[in-house]
This record gives sequence, structure tokens and C-alpha cells, in this order.
Amino acid sequence: MGTKVTAGATMSLDGYIAGPGESGFDELFQWYGNGEVEVPSASPRVPGLRLCAASAELVGPEWRATGALLVGRYLYDMTNAWDGRHPMDVPVVVLTHQRPADRPTDDENFAFVTDGIGAAVAKAKELAGDRNVGVNGGQMARQCLEAGLLDEIGVDLVPVVLGGGKTLFGDLAAPVRFDGPTVTVQGNGVTHLRYRVRS
Amino acid sequence: MGTKVTAGATMSLDGYIAGPGESGFDELFQWYGNGEVEVPSASPRVPGLRLCAASAELVGPEWRATGALLVGRYLYDMTNAWDGRHPMDVPVVVLTHQRPADRPTDDENFAFVTDGIGAAVAKAKELAGDRNVGVNGGQMARQCLEAGLLDEIGVDLVPVVLGGGKTLFGDLAAPVRFDGPTVTVQGNGVTHLRYRVRS
Repeated sequence: MGTKVTAGATMSLDGYIAGPGESGFDELFQWYGNGEVEVPSASPRVPGLRLCAASAELVGPEWRATGALLVGRYLYDMTNAWDGRHPMDVPVVVLTHQRPADRPTDDENFAFVTDGIGAAVAKAKELAGDRNVGVNGGQMARQCLEAGLLDEIGVDLVPVVLGGGKTLFGDLAAPVRFDGPTVTVQGNGVTHLRYRVRS
Repeated sequence: MGTKVTAGATMSLDGYIAGPGESGFDELFQWYGNGEVEVPSASPRVPGLRLCAASAELVGPEWRATGALLVGRYLYDMTNAWDGRHPMDVPVVVLTHQRPADRPTDDENFAFVTDGIGAAVAKAKELAGDRNVGVNGGQMARQCLEAGLLDEIGVDLVPVVLGGGKTLFGDLAAPVRFDGPTVTVQGNGVTHLRYRVRS
């Protein structure tokens, strides 16, 4: 079973993980390509990364320790299912109201869960084995947090102000405190911050 | 003339400088009172601070280097003009559509500017002398930034997620990039980050 559940996001200085109208990704994800350390991609759709040494030294081990991802249907559709396999080369659990018609059965790349966040996290932990579960997307992060299923968050803070868009956790019902940062690493154009959910 | 213009804000991990309905200030400003270094307040309304050593070592000199503040009418009214004098013991320039009826003339504590952000920054620089101008409030920060009048921003990042509220710069028309952080200091329950506006 996956040992911990971490929500990760690249975020602008004013708190957005996407700019207005799904803009701003070039700004947010410059750090994916502004270094010298090559990180291959398992997705035919997404090119490999070129991280700076400091970023690679932190996120390389984090990614290798991730055994499965949990995403929402929105991200799955927006990326066209990463053309078949996630760049991180792990299975992806998709929480959705309805299983996509073009992919009727689960395979080694995707598992679809229709009965809520608890079941989705359980499935992701099962697939992750002895590695961790990564959560992507603000709505998934919020649902995990509100259900008490989130252990950590990783914010990769980029010095750009987008002025609008989607926030890290969407609309939360009540404030949630974290402990940390337990890790602060300065990369090239990004500050990596890691926090633990206060239990 | 004030040498630089810096917008400063205490911000939640999801980008809010105030929570929904002006909530969340207890969460955001815990770092003002969780340490051992006493910082006196010049306002009869606002108690002095007790900062941790790391925070005090950074923000003490920053505050002493600040010669005037620029705020909007909203903050001025919300604080009841700090009951007469700002805690930092500096004059405050208030950008407003209409001068408040209960304070018809400027005095050594407040100056009112009704003809736009450029005039307000100029007035604040004049009052700051050879010290700097601090800008508070998201709308003032946004106006300075959009007018090209902002040199730096200081974000005091607090590990709480508020889930809604007012963002650091409000709604910006276009993305703005910064250089840095030029400073990263970990305090007790707060990460101090300083950035330069990219020119």
C-alpha cells in the first residue's frame, strides 16, 4: 500500500495553478525546461524535461518514489490521457462520474473510479504498492484534503503573477493549517516548498 | 526621494491576503506574535509585535528603512486610520476618490491623494525622504505594478490554505514576471520571500 499521499502543484506567486482561461502554462512551467538534467517522459505527447541541478536533485527522487497518480477527469481529458501513458511512467487513477466511452476497461495505464475520493485514493494506494501516491489538480487536492486523506503538499512556487485563474485547492470550506516548509529548495526560476498536513 | 517602492503582504499558501469575508487574519498574522523579539507599535489601536529572531532580523531593518506607506481607502477605513498613527510610526499616503470628511487637511500622520496612483507614489516618495516606500493592500499593489511604479515585492508566506478571499494583486490584465527570490528567510510559521520586478 502506498505510504503517503502528496498533492503537488506548480503555482504562481499569487496562488494560481492555471491562469485565466487555461493560460499561463508557459510561464508556470519554464522550470521544466531551463536546466541541464534530462528527465525522460513516458508519454508520446509530452517531451522530456531539462531541469536545473537543484530541482532535479529534489524532484527526481520524489518522482521515482511515486507509484501512482490520482487525477480528475478534467486533467485526463485536457491532456488527451497523455496520449496513452503518463510522462512519469506510472498508472493513473482517474476519478470521474462516468467512465470514458473510448476506454471501457482499466488497463495498466489508467484506472477509473466512479464512487468517490475515498475509493479513488484506495485504488491509487493499491497501484502504488510500496511507493507513494501523487495527486494532481486543484479539485482532487481539495477533495483529498477535505476527506482527511492528504499527508503532504508540494508547492513549486514560480515568481510570476498571473492575476487570475485556478487556485491551488479551489474553494475550501474552512482554513487548513500545514507544518513546514519541511523542505525549501531554490531552483532556476522556482522555489520548491514541501509541507505536511497538520493532523 | 524614496529610493524604492516595495509592496508587502502576508499571504496564505493558496495566494490570499485575506480570507472569505475578511476572515483569516488570525491565521495569517500568527507570525506577528509567536516570537520573543518585541517590536513596539506607534498605533494606540494595534499592539506591538513579538517576532521570532529570524523574522525580526529580516523585517526589523526593512521596516526601519521604510519612510512612508501607501495604502488605499479601504485599508484606511477598515483600520479606523490605525486610531491616528500607523504602527510603523511613519506617515501614510491614502489614495482615495474623496478626502474623508473627518480629516479635512493633511497632517504629519496622513496625506490624501485624489488624482491617481502616480501622484500617490510621488507624494509617498516625497514623505519618505531618503528611505523607501511601502505599499499595502492588493489593489494598491496592482495599481503600482500596472503603472510600472513597483520595484520589489515582499511575500510573507504562511502555511495555511484559506480557500478563498482577496489575492495578492487582485485581477491583473497580463502576467508579470519577477526576479528572485533575492531573499529567502524561514521564520516561525512564515517564509519570507523577496522579489524584484523584472524591468
